[in-house]
Amino acid sequence: MNRIIRTTLAMVLLLSAALATADEGMWTFDNPPTKQLQEKYNFTPTKEWLDHVRLSSVRFMDGGSGSFVSPNGLVMTNHHVAMGQLQKMSTAEQNFVATGFYAPTPEQEAKCPDLELNVLVEMVNVTSRITGAVKPGMKPADALKARKEEQARIEKEYSDKTGLRCDVVSLYNGGEYWLYQYKRYTDIRLVMAPERQIAFWGGDDDNFTYPRYDLDMAFFRVYVDDQPLSTPDYLKFNAAGAADNELVFVSGHPGSTSRLDTYAMMEMQRDYSYPMSLEMIQKRLDVLRSYSKKGPEQERRALGQIFGLENSKKALGGQYQGLLDAKLMAKAKADEEAFRARVNANPEWKKAYGDGWKTIEKVIAKQKKEFGSRSYGSLALSSSFARYAQTLVFAAAERKKPDMERLDGYHDVQLERAKLRLFSPAPIYKDLEEAIFTSMLQMAVDKAGTADPIVSAVLKGRSAEKAAQEMIAATTLDKPDVRKALFEGGAEAVAQSTDPFIVVIRELEPMLRERQEKSRKETESLLTPASEKIANARFAVYGKNMYPDATFTLRLSYGAVKGYPMNGTKAPYKTTLYGLYDRALGFDQEGAWALPPRFWDRQKDLDLSTPANFVCTADIIGGNSGSPVINRNAELVGLVFDGNIESLVGDSVYDENANRCVAVHSAFIIEGLRKLYDAGKLADEIEGK
Amino acid sequence: MNRIIRTTLAMVLLLSAALATADEGMWTFDNPPTKQLQEKYNFTPTKEWLDHVRLSSVRFMDGGSGSFVSPNGLVMTNHHVAMGQLQKMSTAEQNFVATGFYAPTPEQEAKCPDLELNVLVEMVNVTSRITGAVKPGMKPADALKARKEEQARIEKEYSDKTGLRCDVVSLYNGGEYWLYQYKRYTDIRLVMAPERQIAFWGGDDDNFTYPRYDLDMAFFRVYVDDQPLSTPDYLKFNAAGAADNELVFVSGHPGSTSRLDTYAMMEMQRDYSYPMSLEMIQKRLDVLRSYSKKGPEQERRALGQIFGLENSKKALGGQYQGLLDAKLMAKAKADEEAFRARVNANPEWKKAYGDGWKTIEKVIAKQKKEFGSRSYGSLALSSSFARYAQTLVFAAAERKKPDMERLDGYHDVQLERAKLRLFSPAPIYKDLEEAIFTSMLQMAVDKAGTADPIVSAVLKGRSAEKAAQEMIAATTLDKPDVRKALFEGGAEAVAQSTDPFIVVIRELEPMLRERQEKSRKETESLLTPASEKIANARFAVYGKNMYPDATFTLRLSYGAVKGYPMNGTKAPYKTTLYGLYDRALGFDQEGAWALPPRFWDRQKDLDLSTPANFVCTADIIGGNSGSPVINRNAELVGLVFDGNIESLVGDSVYDENANRCVAVHSAFIIEGLRKLYDAGKLADEIEGK
Repeated sequence: MNRIIRTTLAMVLLLSAALATADEGMWTFDNPPTKQLQEKYNFTPTKEWLDHVRLSSVRFMDGGSGSFVSPNGLVMTNHHVAMGQLQKMSTAEQNFVATGFYAPTPEQEAKCPDLELNVLVEMVNVTSRITGAVKPGMKPADALKARKEEQARIEKEYSDKTGLRCDVVSLYNGGEYWLYQYKRYTDIRLVMAPERQIAFWGGDDDNFTYPRYDLDMAFFRVYVDDQPLSTPDYLKFNAAGAADNELVFVSGHPGSTSRLDTYAMMEMQRDYSYPMSLEMIQKRLDVLRSYSKKGPEQERRALGQIFGLENSKKALGGQYQGLLDAKLMAKAKADEEAFRARVNANPEWKKAYGDGWKTIEKVIAKQKKEFGSRSYGSLALSSSFARYAQTLVFAAAERKKPDMERLDGYHDVQLERAKLRLFSPAPIYKDLEEAIFTSMLQMAVDKAGTADPIVSAVLKGRSAEKAAQEMIAATTLDKPDVRKALFEGGAEAVAQSTDPFIVVIRELEPMLRERQEKSRKETESLLTPASEKIANARFAVYGKNMYPDATFTLRLSYGAVKGYPMNGTKAPYKTTLYGLYDRALGFDQEGAWALPPRFWDRQKDLDLSTPANFVCTADIIGGNSGSPVINRNAELVGLVFDGNIESLVGDSVYDENANRCVAVHSAFIIEGLRKLYDAGKLADEIEGK
Repeated sequence: MNRIIRTTLAMVLLLSAALATADEGMWTFDNPPTKQLQEKYNFTPTKEWLDHVRLSSVRFMDGGSGSFVSPNGLVMTNHHVAMGQLQKMSTAEQNFVATGFYAPTPEQEAKCPDLELNVLVEMVNVTSRITGAVKPGMKPADALKARKEEQARIEKEYSDKTGLRCDVVSLYNGGEYWLYQYKRYTDIRLVMAPERQIAFWGGDDDNFTYPRYDLDMAFFRVYVDDQPLSTPDYLKFNAAGAADNELVFVSGHPGSTSRLDTYAMMEMQRDYSYPMSLEMIQKRLDVLRSYSKKGPEQERRALGQIFGLENSKKALGGQYQGLLDAKLMAKAKADEEAFRARVNANPEWKKAYGDGWKTIEKVIAKQKKEFGSRSYGSLALSSSFARYAQTLVFAAAERKKPDMERLDGYHDVQLERAKLRLFSPAPIYKDLEEAIFTSMLQMAVDKAGTADPIVSAVLKGRSAEKAAQEMIAATTLDKPDVRKALFEGGAEAVAQSTDPFIVVIRELEPMLRERQEKSRKETESLLTPASEKIANARFAVYGKNMYPDATFTLRLSYGAVKGYPMNGTKAPYKTTLYGLYDRALGFDQEGAWALPPRFWDRQKDLDLSTPANFVCTADIIGGNSGSPVINRNAELVGLVFDGNIESLVGDSVYDENANRCVAVHSAFIIEGLRKLYDAGKLADEIEGK
C-alpha cells in the first residue's frame, strides 16, 4: 500500500493547486461549487434540489452517513457503519454480524441500543457573534473564554427555541462559524443487514482498494413516538445506476481532513502524532488478536474493535506515508511560502494576518517539547470504564455551575445527549476490557514510567496486570443501572462511590482540570485566533470559491463515474457479480474471500452481469461511509462505502487522476435484497413499488 | 506503470543479493539449480527429466518459445508469438488475425511462409577452444579475430558432422562458451489460433499486467518430408493445472537480461540507449497509427508492427524507469564496489581480473562521446528494403572469401539459414513501407543532418519525402523472385542492379565496412576480454551456483504458483472465466475489452469457474512467451504469455515478492478448444484421448 501512496503523491504534486480545481472539494450546502458544476458539467443545482438532498441526508453519530430511501423513515447506510450496533445487539447465541438480519414486518424491526441519527434542517452564519464576543484588548485566555461562552449561549438559545440539536461549527479553520441545527432521532430500529462476510468481503486486504465487489449495506428505520417517521424528503431509487462519465454527487459527512493545515502542523503530525497513533493501534491490535484466538465467542466479541483498528491502521498508515513523501512536503512548504509572500506584500493584510503562521509555529514548537511521556501516561486511562468514570465525576462537578460557565461537553443540552451512550444497555465484556486495559496500562508504564501521576494513581503500587485485573473485577460500571444511579445521584453519589475507576478519576480530577486549563491557556487560546487570521488571509487572497476542511458536518461532493490508471493498466468504472465469483475462486475462497453459502445456492437465480460496485471522482473521506451517490435528478444510484488506496492521501491532497470514491451499485442492492435475502418487500419499499 | 516500477524497485533493493536466492534465475540445462530445488521444494530433477523437458522445448526463431504437446509434432505457443506468421498468411479478404484459424484435418493445416523452429539436442562446452585460440602477446584486434575464426570453425566442424544448426553461445558474459546444437525445422504449418481479440484481450493497457484473462495460444505442427514429425519427447497435458503454492518450472528461451552488466554499462543504457530507443519507438508508433487510420486494410497491415512497438514501449519504458531509480543504481554501484574490493583483496585475482571494469569504463566513455548523430544517421536505412539490400550486397562480397574469413553472419551455414527470410513469400506492403521509411528518414535528417554520409547517400539532394517516395516506387525488392535472383546472381548481379536500395548500399558499402571494422577494433576487441575477466572473477569469488544472463537460449526457471501484494491488497494466484466477463462488462466491452461474439453465444456451455490465467514466481523475460509451465512430473499445466508490471525491471533485478510470470491455465486451453472453437479433435490430441 505504502508504495502506491508515496508515488501517487509524487503525481499529485504535479496536479494540486492552492485552490479547488477539478472535481475536488467537500462543499457546504450554503456554498456549493456552482461555478465548477456549470462549467464542467453544465448543471446548476437549484435551491430546491439542495434542500431536498440535504433533508434526505442523515448523519450517524457513531461516525458515518446515510440517507432516507423511502417516505417512511427508512434509512440506508453501510453495513460497516451499522456494525457497532449490530455487534451490541448480538449475543453468543444470536450473532447478527455473522448471520445478517431481516425484519419482514415492522414488529420484527429491532431497536438499537444507543444509535443517534441527525438531519440538518437549518444553518445560520454566526461568525460575527462569535468573533464579536472578543473585545479589543482582551487577553488571549479571556478572549477564548468569551468565545466559548458565546458559543454555548448561541447553542442554548437556539436549542431552547427550536428543540433541535444545535451545534456551533468552525469552518475554514475559523474563517467562519455556523450554527448547524439538526433533528435528532434516537429510536432507531434495524430493518436489514446482510452477513458481514459479503458486506466486508475481501476483508482488511481489500479494504481501501478497488476493484471491489462488496454488498456493504444496512437498513434502519427511524421511529418517533413508536411510529415510523414520515420522511417526505427521501431519495428516489434508480436501480439502473449511473453510466460511465456521468455526473454524480455524494451528500454526506466527511469526518476530518487537514488540507488547510500549515506546514508546521503537518510536520507535527508527521513526526509525532502519526507515529504514536500507529504504535498504539498496533499494540491494541496485538492484544485483540491474541484475545480473539481464545475461542469463537472471544472472536465475536473482539471483531468490531479489530475491524475498526485495522481500518484505522490502513487509513492512517496511508496518510502518514503521504506526509513522509519529501516532494509532497516540499510542495506544501512552497505553497505556504507563496501564500505568505502574497499576504506580506499587502501592508493591510500583513498587519491583520501576517503573524498567524509564526504563532502556530511557536505553539507547535512548545507542543513538540512536551510531547511524549505525558501522552503515553494518559494511556493508563484507556478503558471504557475510565471513560465512563471521567464523564460521571466531571459531570457531577460541572452540573453545580451555571450552564454557561461549564466545561464544553457538560452543558445541559450536551449532557442530555450524552445519556444515550452513558445509559446504553449494550453489553460490556469484562474479559475483553481487561485484556485491553492491561496492555494499555503496561504501555503507559513502559513509556511514561511509574512516576507519571496518572500511571501512579492507577497502579497504586501494583503491577499493571494486577491493577487491571483487580480494578476490572471490582468495577460495576459495566451495569447501565449503576451508571444511571451515579449520574442521577450527582456529586454526592460520586463522592461516596468506592468503584475503583471512580476513585482513581476522583483523585486525578484536580490535575486533569489543571492540565485542561493549561492547554486552553497555552495552546487553544493562541491557536484559535492564529488559525482565524490565516483563514481570513486565505479569503482575502483567494476569495471564497473554496471549501472548508471536513468537520463531520454535511457536505456535497461531486464528480464523474470514471475508472483510473491502476498498476500498469486501467481500473474499470464498475465491476459486476461475475467478478465477485472470479475473485472468490481466485483465492480458493479462503478467509475473507469465501462467499456466504447463499451466493452459491442461489447463483442460478442471479443475473451475474448486475453491476456490483463502481467508482467516481467525488472527493470523500472517512465519515462519508454510507453516503448516497445521486445523479443530477437526485436519484440514488449508489452507496459510498470506501475510497481506493490512492485516496488515502486525501487527508492532505486530492488528485482527480487517481483518487476515487468506491460505491455499491444500486442494482446490486436490489438484486441482493430480492434474490439472495428474500427481502422483496424491502426492495419494493425502496423502489416505490 | 512507471510509478509501480519505480517503487517496486525500492522494495527490490531490500531483497536482492549478489547471488541467486529465492526463486531467481534462468538456468542452463547443464547447470540446473539442484541445490535450491532440493532445499526449498524437496525435488531434484533427474537427467532423464531434464533431457525430456529440453527435447520437448521449442525455440521460435521469430522470437519466442513453445513446446511439443503431442507425439505428432504438435507445437503449442502464444498467439502473439504466432502473430507475425498469422499476419503474413492473411490478406484483406481472409484475415486469420481477426477471425482465428482452425484446421480440423491435416490437409487444412496451412504452411507458414518463413517460420523456423529449433530444438536443442546437444550442448558442448567449448570454452577452452575459444579462449585457447588467443595466444599470449596477441594484440586485441588479432585476438578477437582468432576467437571469431575459432568460433566459425567450431560451428562449421559440428555442422558438417551432424547436419544440425550449431551456434557458439557466450554465457556468463564470456565466462563460458558453449556449442548449442539444434534440430532446425522450417516446414511449419498452422493448426489453430483463436481470434486476436481474445488472445490479446485487454490490449496494450492490460499487456504486462495481472489479473488477466487471455487465451493467448496458437498451435503449429512440424513437418519433415511432408509428414508430421514424430516427437516422442512431448509434454503430457494436465488440464487440472497447478495448485496454489505448487512447484512449477518454465522451460523456454528468455531473450536478454542485463543482470551481470557493470555499473558503467547500466549508466550507458540509462543515459543513451533507452532514451533513444524510446524516442524512435514513439516516432514509429505515431507514423503507424496515422497510417492505420486510413482504412480497415491499412489498419490490418499495420497491426502487427503496432503491437510489437507498443509492447516494446511498455517493456523498455519499465526497464528505463528501473534504471532511473536512484536507489537501484546506488545499490548496483555498492554491489559492484564490494565485488571489486574482494577481487582486489586477493593479489592473484587482482592481477588476473582487476582491470576488467576500468577497460569497460574507458570504452564506454568513448562510446558516449561518439553517441548521437551517427546513430541517428543510421535511421536513414530504416526500411525492410534497405535491410534486404544490405544482406544482398554484403553477401555477394563475402561469399567470394574463404568461409572462415567472412564477417559473422555470412558464413555458408548462416547464409543457408538466412534464405528462409530472404526468399520468404510473405507480402510486403509498399505504402506501409513508404510511410515508415519517410518518417525515419526525416528523423535522420533532423537529428543527424544532411551532411551525414548515410543520409546524404539516401537523399541524393532530395527531400526525405521525395527520396522515400521515389525509392520505394522504383524498388522491386518486394518480390521474392527478385531477391532470389540477386542472391543467386552474386556479385555480378548486385553490381549490375539499378534498384535504388541496392545502389545506395553499394555506395555506402566501403564506409559501412570501415565502421564495422573500427567498432571491432575499438570496442569489441576490448570489451570481450574485459567482460571475460569480470566473469571469471565472479566465478572465483562466488562460485558457479549462478545463472548466466539470458541469451535467447534454452533455460529452466522454477518457482511456486503464488499471488502477490498488489495495489494495497493481494493479487490472486489465478483468475477464472467469471473474471473475463466481469472485466469486459466493467469497460462496457469497449475496444480491447470487447469479447468475441462466440463468448456470449456460447457462454451457457462454459464452466465459468474454469481457471483462466495464473501467476508463478518463475523468473522469465521477453522470449519466454509461449514457454510451457510444467509441474514436477513434467506435465504441462500452463502456457507462459506475459510478466506482471512489477516484473519489467527484471532486465536488471529479480524480486520474488512482486515479480510474476503470467500464464494461460491448461484448463482454459481445453475449455476453449472444446466449447468455443469446435476443436475437440485438437483437444483430444493434446489430452491423448
